[in-house]
Amino acid sequence: MSSQKAFQFPYIVGLHDTDAADYLFSANLIRICHIAYEAMMASLGFPLGSLLKQRDFALPIVHIEGDFKQRLTVSDELTISAWVSRLGGSSYTISYELRKPDGELCATASTVQVCVDWNSSKSQPLPAPLREALGRYSEA
Amino acid sequence: MSSQKAFQFPYIVGLHDTDAADYLFSANLIRICHIAYEAMMASLGFPLGSLLKQRDFALPIVHIEGDFKQRLTVSDELTISAWVSRLGGSSYTISYELRKPDGELCATASTVQVCVDWNSSKSQPLPAPLREALGRYSEA
Amino acid sequence: MSSQKAFQFPYIVGLHDTDAADYLFSANLIRICHIAYEAMMASLGFPLGSLLKQRDFALPIVHIEGDFKQRLTVSDELTISAWVSRLGGSSYTISYELRKPDGELCATASTVQVCVDWNSSKSQPLPAPLREALGRYSEA
Amino acid sequence: MSSQKAFQFPYIVGLHDTDAADYLFSANLIRICHIAYEAMMASLGFPLGSLLKQRDFALPIVHIEGDFKQRLTVSDELTISAWVSRLGGSSYTISYELRKPDGELCATASTVQVCVDWNSSKSQPLPAPLREALGRYSEA
Repeated sequence: MSSQKAFQFPYIVGLHDTDAADYLFSANLIRICHIAYEAMMASLGFPLGSLLKQRDFALPIVHIEGDFKQRLTVSDELTISAWVSRLGGSSYTISYELRKPDGELCATASTVQVCVDWNSSKSQPLPAPLREALGRYSEA
Repeated sequence: MSSQKAFQFPYIVGLHDTDAADYLFSANLIRICHIAYEAMMASLGFPLGSLLKQRDFALPIVHIEGDFKQRLTVSDELTISAWVSRLGGSSYTISYELRKPDGELCATASTVQVCVDWNSSKSQPLPAPLREALGRYSEA
Repeated sequence: MSSQKAFQFPYIVGLHDTDAADYLFSANLIRICHIAYEAMMASLGFPLGSLLKQRDFALPIVHIEGDFKQRLTVSDELTISAWVSRLGGSSYTISYELRKPDGELCATASTVQVCVDWNSSKSQPLPAPLREALGRYSEA
Repeated sequence: MSSQKAFQFPYIVGLHDTDAADYLFSANLIRICHIAYEAMMASLGFPLGSLLKQRDFALPIVHIEGDFKQRLTVSDELTISAWVSRLGGSSYTISYELRKPDGELCATASTVQVCVDWNSSKSQPLPAPLREALGRYSEA
């Protein structure tokens, strides 16, 4: 996507992200992307802490996916680009790219989130203000 | 303490517990002990999942402590001993020892938990049934 | 796949696996599956700790994927089925299913691992003994 | 200690840091402090990634300790102060304070690190340049 549209987030790989094989432990790719996602949501006026306090709707992740292109380890400096690659009626997909300072693509990931009623866990349409906000980082 | 009184829990160090220096990442000692604690609580009839569903009281941890005696890494087989080393009116301390199959002590830890009202977060006396249950693994 | 071929691993969702929305935190699905994978590898005679000590080859994960079918939270008892759904020349795919005691499918996942030289990180054929061992849990 | 001497690090509590009881999961306090520690070390010219690549000495943590003063949860904005509260011949203690924007103290922690030979794991004197660098954030 065009770089103008993506949310940019700096991240330094921490010792806690790595494993004894001296690689980024695979599951932690999704954790790292989620940190960028939370920062993106906060920048849009929807910090997760507020959504959780309201207990109105939840946005559980129903699908995660990640690909590793280059070995990553402690102290690696990354820029994470995050954008809304699909904006549906009650769900959306966030795509992520992790690059080193020289632009090298190290990993990609995506997550699918569904809007559900807090109590019943039944899917519901995305609230209009959230949908509109997500549009700011949307490809469409 | 006498081994009769401690709850015994087997644990194998996972890749996700380690770091790029090929050590158990320090914070994960507390996570591992908490897994043993949850198993102990379940064995006493107080699985954490049920306590959380009831939303009556919470048992937040207010103090953690750990000491590393031997290097631990992936696939190390451990036995965790957990026991109630202090049983107060509204709080208690769980102590932990992690040993290899040959009995070598690799790490110790302790956590202090306080009973609080779910909504107000104010401390309150431990419910009698929980207090009685914890007594089964208590030194006193 | 036929249940005879899958490696079975019991797992109880821990507090550390969950998040403030009272869901299994998405990234932790991959961490949990990796614990089952490590147990499978140990059962095949290839504990990860030994592979890492030998520093001969590594098996980095190049792709992860997961789908959530049912909400999971603290103290949920699961059985994880893990099997080799693809056994290539220098890589393999492990597939996972997480089910509750009543058989309900709660989540699925898969990971792709590539065999690489420890030092150069270049891909290489799977060592024959490992390939043969993986065949025990292979669909093919 | 005087605020001039402490390393300051901003941190926003992430969903992955929390648990289903809507608290910061206790072990994660140490993980969060370690992130601040890594940033402090990098600011001193000793990024952990470089130390690990050199494989000359390691700085394993032999003691961890933490106290929770206030409930912390998702999206809480913190400033972590980290300083060297003890600088010994072959070990040192880092102390941490976590405060909200209004200055409220939410948690404290400390970790003890020992300098050991990379291969033998035997303790050795802190290298002079590292010792000198740590002095910049030392109380003494």
